[in-house]
Amino acid sequence: MVGSDALQSIVYARGSLRLLDQRKLPLEMDYIDVKNSADGWNAIRDMVVRGAPAIAIAAALALAVEVSDLDFIGTPGEAASFVSKKLEYLVFSRPTAVNLSDAATKLQTLVSKAAETAKDSKAIFQVYIEAAETMLVDDVADNKAIGSHGAVFLQRQLANSKKISVLTHCNTGSLATAGYGTALGVIRALYSGGVLEKAFCTETRPFNQGSRLTAFELVHEKIPATLIADSAAAALMKQGHVQAVIVGADRIAANGDTANKIGTYNLAISAKHHSVQFYVAAPVTSIDLSLPSGDEIVIEERSPKELLNSEGGLGKQVAASGISVWNPAFDVTPANLITAIITEKGVITKTDADGSFDIKGFLQPAK
Amino acid sequence: MVGSDALQSIVYARGSLRLLDQRKLPLEMDYIDVKNSADGWNAIRDMVVRGAPAIAIAAALALAVEVSDLDFIGTPGEAASFVSKKLEYLVFSRPTAVNLSDAATKLQTLVSKAAETAKDSKAIFQVYIEAAETMLVDDVADNKAIGSHGAVFLQRQLANSKKISVLTHCNTGSLATAGYGTALGVIRALYSGGVLEKAFCTETRPFNQGSRLTAFELVHEKIPATLIADSAAAALMKQGHVQAVIVGADRIAANGDTANKIGTYNLAISAKHHSVQFYVAAPVTSIDLSLPSGDEIVIEERSPKELLNSEGGLGKQVAASGISVWNPAFDVTPANLITAIITEKGVITKTDADGSFDIKGFLQPAK
Repeated sequence: MVGSDALQSIVYARGSLRLLDQRKLPLEMDYIDVKNSADGWNAIRDMVVRGAPAIAIAAALALAVEVSDLDFIGTPGEAASFVSKKLEYLVFSRPTAVNLSDAATKLQTLVSKAAETAKDSKAIFQVYIEAAETMLVDDVADNKAIGSHGAVFLQRQLANSKKISVLTHCNTGSLATAGYGTALGVIRALYSGGVLEKAFCTETRPFNQGSRLTAFELVHEKIPATLIADSAAAALMKQGHVQAVIVGADRIAANGDTANKIGTYNLAISAKHHSVQFYVAAPVTSIDLSLPSGDEIVIEERSPKELLNSEGGLGKQVAASGISVWNPAFDVTPANLITAIITEKGVITKTDADGSFDIKGFLQPAK
Repeated sequence: MVGSDALQSIVYARGSLRLLDQRKLPLEMDYIDVKNSADGWNAIRDMVVRGAPAIAIAAALALAVEVSDLDFIGTPGEAASFVSKKLEYLVFSRPTAVNLSDAATKLQTLVSKAAETAKDSKAIFQVYIEAAETMLVDDVADNKAIGSHGAVFLQRQLANSKKISVLTHCNTGSLATAGYGTALGVIRALYSGGVLEKAFCTETRPFNQGSRLTAFELVHEKIPATLIADSAAAALMKQGHVQAVIVGADRIAANGDTANKIGTYNLAISAKHHSVQFYVAAPVTSIDLSLPSGDEIVIEERSPKELLNSEGGLGKQVAASGISVWNPAFDVTPANLITAIITEKGVITKTDADGSFDIKGFLQPAK
């Protein structure tokens, strides 16, 4: 278990996983038990757990719990193949989340390599469990690095302002990660550095991750914060009340195009229009170099009920009966609207040559 | 009573006024009785009735009902002063709605002029009642003219597209006016002219006028329509699915800057970014030549509850306890983001000289 004063969405000890049911926040703190990959799949699909990093870790740990006391009869190769298939299945709970598919690929490679030398299936599962647990520990460390890099960079960029105010979208905090957060981690770091005037968060329709979760975390951390409707963002920027927008990422293409919660692209266009800086904060695992641009990112569509009913589709009918709905989960913000990408390895800025990101060069620096 | 197949938000006969309680739509069709100006004030403030034209008419008619059987003892001058004070009071139910204050001023002038020659107070009230009733009748005629001018203009502008799709925001239809609608009137006219591919409407947070009311009207009229989250508008435009955005107006300044429902400015910036045409459709009573620009428009802030709770503040708690809220009712879209302004007197386009609107010249053409 990762120690932290902050909220924990993932509570894990070997053989046991509990996930905070984020659909019930901010009114109830209710944890659900996850005993196997099917429970994990459902929890991800039903939005019990959300946020790209948290999803990957929850999926990996769900399987870790499943194999921790599994009565498996078979060779190490068969055990590796069992793990591999379960991971493949878990990836389909949220196809857009690259962290999840990346983590699955890494874990698959790991177990199939281990199968070459392992003496029994138990050893394969042990290797898998330890790798999944490491993901959990590393995530908090990575987020703290993102926060620290981001806070230093923003202060340098915005040196004219003594204190700065920042707008964020969706939830990228302790609830979306194993702890601390990505975009919200930068806000946290700005606050603890004494340079945050105020954080603004959007409602983040239609699932209200902003008003329910980000607002909950900001109040919990006593960070000065104000909630706005998504559509009030442009008016806020026009009044000069924010110096930067910081968002997370579900997937970043090789050129910097970023898929993130629907509405991110709207904010990026508004930020550009008002000369407000626009940052993406995410671990490098969100970067998918196999995608040349955002055009190759498949956008998941979610249930019309999220717009038709209150409480993200679970509550009373709000909208008129019989209306069609278009409810994309994500949109793609092109790299040209992004000031910089903040990662745990540092901040990716644009090259002077042509104003594009050299993400590959950043990740694989010349020796 | 204005005859129409469409929904009626204002049901009036001399001495009786009923307003459709739009807070209960789309689930219930419930009318409330309005017997006097205090009832009217409350209905406007509490959003029973909404939409700039409908508000002005409802306020005027509420007072018409009050004076229709009033046992008033006093001179014609005192009667005129009574009417005048009541109108002043009604204006404060929604200070941003210029239609309301304009209507009040006109009616005040009318009764004070009538007081010069009237033989008794009853005659003053009679003059007032007839003037208020004329507003109701004229509104539908004006809206049909807006629809017709708009449809003709859009078809000419977008001649390359056989059929066009249009995005609208908030509610500007039969429910916001005495009938037919302004921006929604243009959509209605495009549809009956056979050139509308599809109408898209936003939810229009935080009060959901789009998902509750506009969606209700579009389904009722069998116009092909799709609902989106406000923040999905930019993604929709990027996909090339809409050729124009048409919105209403609460107030238009002399230079064309337009105050309208929060989120309008967001849409205008996105439209500009995607080279999508952006139209304001409103009666000329929405134009306030006394305001040189949008900077002089006072923006009303509404209750934080609209964001904190579901159902526009009336339902269950959604957002985290203790979070601050900024909830402006309107924003101002600068004229430079507006393609043209569609009125009942024709379409106001930009002058070739400097790309600005000559609204004064349009309203008061040289003889």
